[in-house]
Amino acid sequence: MASPDETENPFTMLSARQVYENPWISVVEHQVLSPGGTPGIYGVVKFKNRAVGVIPYHEGKIWLVGQYRVPLGIYSWEIPEGGSPPGEDLIEGARRELREETGLEAHTIEPLLEMHLSNSVSDEWGIVYVARGISPGPAAPEDTEQLVVRTVALEEAYQMVCAGTITDSLSVAGILRLVLLERERAGGP
Amino acid sequence: MASPDETENPFTMLSARQVYENPWISVVEHQVLSPGGTPGIYGVVKFKNRAVGVIPYHEGKIWLVGQYRVPLGIYSWEIPEGGSPPGEDLIEGARRELREETGLEAHTIEPLLEMHLSNSVSDEWGIVYVARGISPGPAAPEDTEQLVVRTVALEEAYQMVCAGTITDSLSVAGILRLVLLERERAGGP
Repeated sequence: MASPDETENPFTMLSARQVYENPWISVVEHQVLSPGGTPGIYGVVKFKNRAVGVIPYHEGKIWLVGQYRVPLGIYSWEIPEGGSPPGEDLIEGARRELREETGLEAHTIEPLLEMHLSNSVSDEWGIVYVARGISPGPAAPEDTEQLVVRTVALEEAYQMVCAGTITDSLSVAGILRLVLLERERAGGP
Repeated sequence: MASPDETENPFTMLSARQVYENPWISVVEHQVLSPGGTPGIYGVVKFKNRAVGVIPYHEGKIWLVGQYRVPLGIYSWEIPEGGSPPGEDLIEGARRELREETGLEAHTIEPLLEMHLSNSVSDEWGIVYVARGISPGPAAPEDTEQLVVRTVALEEAYQMVCAGTITDSLSVAGILRLVLLERERAGGP
């Protein structure tokens, strides 16, 4: 008898039905048997777009955008980010979000990290880039966005993460990764 | 005339109805007017629990748990984490998840960072702790979990984040923050 493969799905997936859909997400409820054999449900939020974040980095400073986040009811300072639809080149998506939210153009776009944002419930995937060789241009936010842009030192952004002032997950992880990268490049341990 | 406050909700929220609910999430669809005045909808996924992650750290090593993530259809190596219900003390929740998933007990539990995991669509909030002064005990996973536990050097976990081998957002951000903290404590720049 073959030994069980621990990397295989331990749930028995019995059936699935879509219970909600809008242009950005759908929600699918699965009838399952748990690893222990207990009947239950598993609700999954499926995302239509990939999340793309980009940190414009120039002379030790980064650009942050402030925006109201409806699901939280809070105003949030974040790296430029947004949804990249299927088929869009991710780096093109990063350049587009950078242009739309800040008006900036970048010479190079370099990946920092990839994440699954909320993997107990959703399939949302995101990537964060650092943009270098920054030059200005006109901003063109979407109708659904009302943005304020400011620059802060990367080390100040890191302190904002540590203080819980920046809380958006792509921003938090991207800033931490960029701080490590820049300290390593400067020859630190 | 008062000038508009950019930190207020630029959407006009017209009405809301719950379109889905299970024991972990609900989904609410709002009828809105966009900042530009265009009618539209905003779907919000509301979480009933807080996400709590905890990194057991001992002599330069951390513990990771491997588990299959149904929404993604992948096997994922992560820090011990789970949902803390309303009313549970968060540090108690961290100790409970640590105990359930690894059997470990900790002398101290120290906060590393807080995040909103997916703020374009959900209100999910999470916190990551580092646990120090680790001692063993019996593991007791929930019926819905089938877990494998292993230890890796913190620096190896950092390389797994950079390589995209660890992708869970709480794990990614928590590991990056802990690497920075430990390098700073060791006197690095």
